[in-house]
Amino acid sequence: MDIEEHRSGGQRVIAVDWGTSQLRAYRLDEAGAVIEARERPEGILAVPPGGFPAALDAIVAGWESAAGRVVMSGMVGSRQGWLEIPYVECPADTASIARGVRPVEWRKGATALICPGLVCRGSDGVPDVMRGEEVQVMGALTLEAGTGFGSILMAGTHSKHVRVESGAITGFETHMTGEVFAVLKAHSILGRMIEDGPPDDYAFARGVARSGEGSGLLHHLFGVRTRVLVGEMQARSVSDYLSGLLIGHTLRAAAPAPPVLVMGAPLVAERYRRACRQLGIDARTLASERATIAGLVAIDRLLTTKAA
Amino acid sequence: MDIEEHRSGGQRVIAVDWGTSQLRAYRLDEAGAVIEARERPEGILAVPPGGFPAALDAIVAGWESAAGRVVMSGMVGSRQGWLEIPYVECPADTASIARGVRPVEWRKGATALICPGLVCRGSDGVPDVMRGEEVQVMGALTLEAGTGFGSILMAGTHSKHVRVESGAITGFETHMTGEVFAVLKAHSILGRMIEDGPPDDYAFARGVARSGEGSGLLHHLFGVRTRVLVGEMQARSVSDYLSGLLIGHTLRAAAPAPPVLVMGAPLVAERYRRACRQLGIDARTLASERATIAGLVAIDRLLTTKAA
Repeated sequence: MDIEEHRSGGQRVIAVDWGTSQLRAYRLDEAGAVIEARERPEGILAVPPGGFPAALDAIVAGWESAAGRVVMSGMVGSRQGWLEIPYVECPADTASIARGVRPVEWRKGATALICPGLVCRGSDGVPDVMRGEEVQVMGALTLEAGTGFGSILMAGTHSKHVRVESGAITGFETHMTGEVFAVLKAHSILGRMIEDGPPDDYAFARGVARSGEGSGLLHHLFGVRTRVLVGEMQARSVSDYLSGLLIGHTLRAAAPAPPVLVMGAPLVAERYRRACRQLGIDARTLASERATIAGLVAIDRLLTTKAA
Repeated sequence: MDIEEHRSGGQRVIAVDWGTSQLRAYRLDEAGAVIEARERPEGILAVPPGGFPAALDAIVAGWESAAGRVVMSGMVGSRQGWLEIPYVECPADTASIARGVRPVEWRKGATALICPGLVCRGSDGVPDVMRGEEVQVMGALTLEAGTGFGSILMAGTHSKHVRVESGAITGFETHMTGEVFAVLKAHSILGRMIEDGPPDDYAFARGVARSGEGSGLLHHLFGVRTRVLVGEMQARSVSDYLSGLLIGHTLRAAAPAPPVLVMGAPLVAERYRRACRQLGIDARTLASERATIAGLVAIDRLLTTKAA
């Protein structure tokens, strides 16, 4: 890549996390600390064709004087984003990811940088992919250097279970945990029997426990219905029970190496952490926003250093 | 129950299969053969409160002279149906089911009969239920007497896997196979990448094979997406692959005892039969409508005989 214009080592960087539904920008100081953060619901699906330069302009408005470099990660590098950036193969470390970074024309005479996603193949040969989480993992490696962890779990719509060895992602697998939960709640017979209620940790724990019994997820899902039908479970406990069931199935199948570092929206990350603990897997949470910023800074520094 | 008015042994019976979405009635001769069949999209969810007598009147219109007895099975006996008939506990044979039959007031001075559903508890203590399928199983036992089978599989929205020993249902488990397929197709990220195409038996078989690999269903679901994303699978193959994946997971978890008798809508039953064959499980199909009628006749005869 041509990184000529990103060479100025002393300049400040703007870190951008551009996902499917949200656009987040962080103005950072020379040390990588956040001076100002902005967020808009302008995920890539909300950007009109050709509208990416203008959307970036808008979210960094007023930051111009400080903006020497803009480094972005997430779905902005997907087919539906600004420019499709080829996936980098696993195993991958910060250097491999930095080598996959590509520039896009942003303003006249100025480019912005987009990080690549990762692709890996499981032992079964089926590919798996991520876009954005790889930067968070690199950030976690920076933030948690020396504390030691066996794997990283990114909670969310599509939960990611990442194996890390010697500073590199050696493999990962994605589970449709959160999306299946949302779709079943909104559109299945189970959703129709759910009533709102206060958080029910006991129901969640029962769901996690149930995931270890025989007969598989599709049978366990029907059991949610029968438990309510025969009066063994309250309708207001269904949502937490279902969540525990799906997270339990995910964890038993993914079998993350402990200790597990759990990232994601705080409430969901805490659910995974609790389920890990119930299954005897040592786990702690890490704020994913901090990890994203640290990862983008680490990648930017590597680009700057190499070019200098 | 008071079956006084159902005592006339020589009389013809009307068999009614009243499910969630369909109402089917069969006018039978003394030998139990169908003289006339009628079907309406008046499943129990389409019947207004208090409207069951009129709906039954309408579908048997003109059959009055022949109608000595009306025997019904299915969701008509559920909480949302005409009258909630208590579940009968497993193990259950035709006699136990017949003992659970209850009358409802239909016309002045005339009642109709509703068969009970079954409830069983798995080794894990979680209850499972069926309404209507138990009558089909009893019919299958009549129709297939002497041919020998190890278990019965009812394909459909909620697939039922029934263990049968010495003419009795000893246990069963329900899997949300068909509903999860429909919900994912209609509402998930997988559905959005599906294109219509001709039946793709190879994609179906690949889905069945995939279900035996590690990492669980929630990971396999995400793999559908990545396979398309990296160009390994055509968008028009996704639906059949997903179907194979879900049926494969169901069969591996339910582990039906062979030979398996598969019932259900012909196209879906045939899918389960093919998946069984791929997994080395001997299986054949049986028309479920025939089984329903034979089951209702067998129960009716038992009631008549006992009362005579």
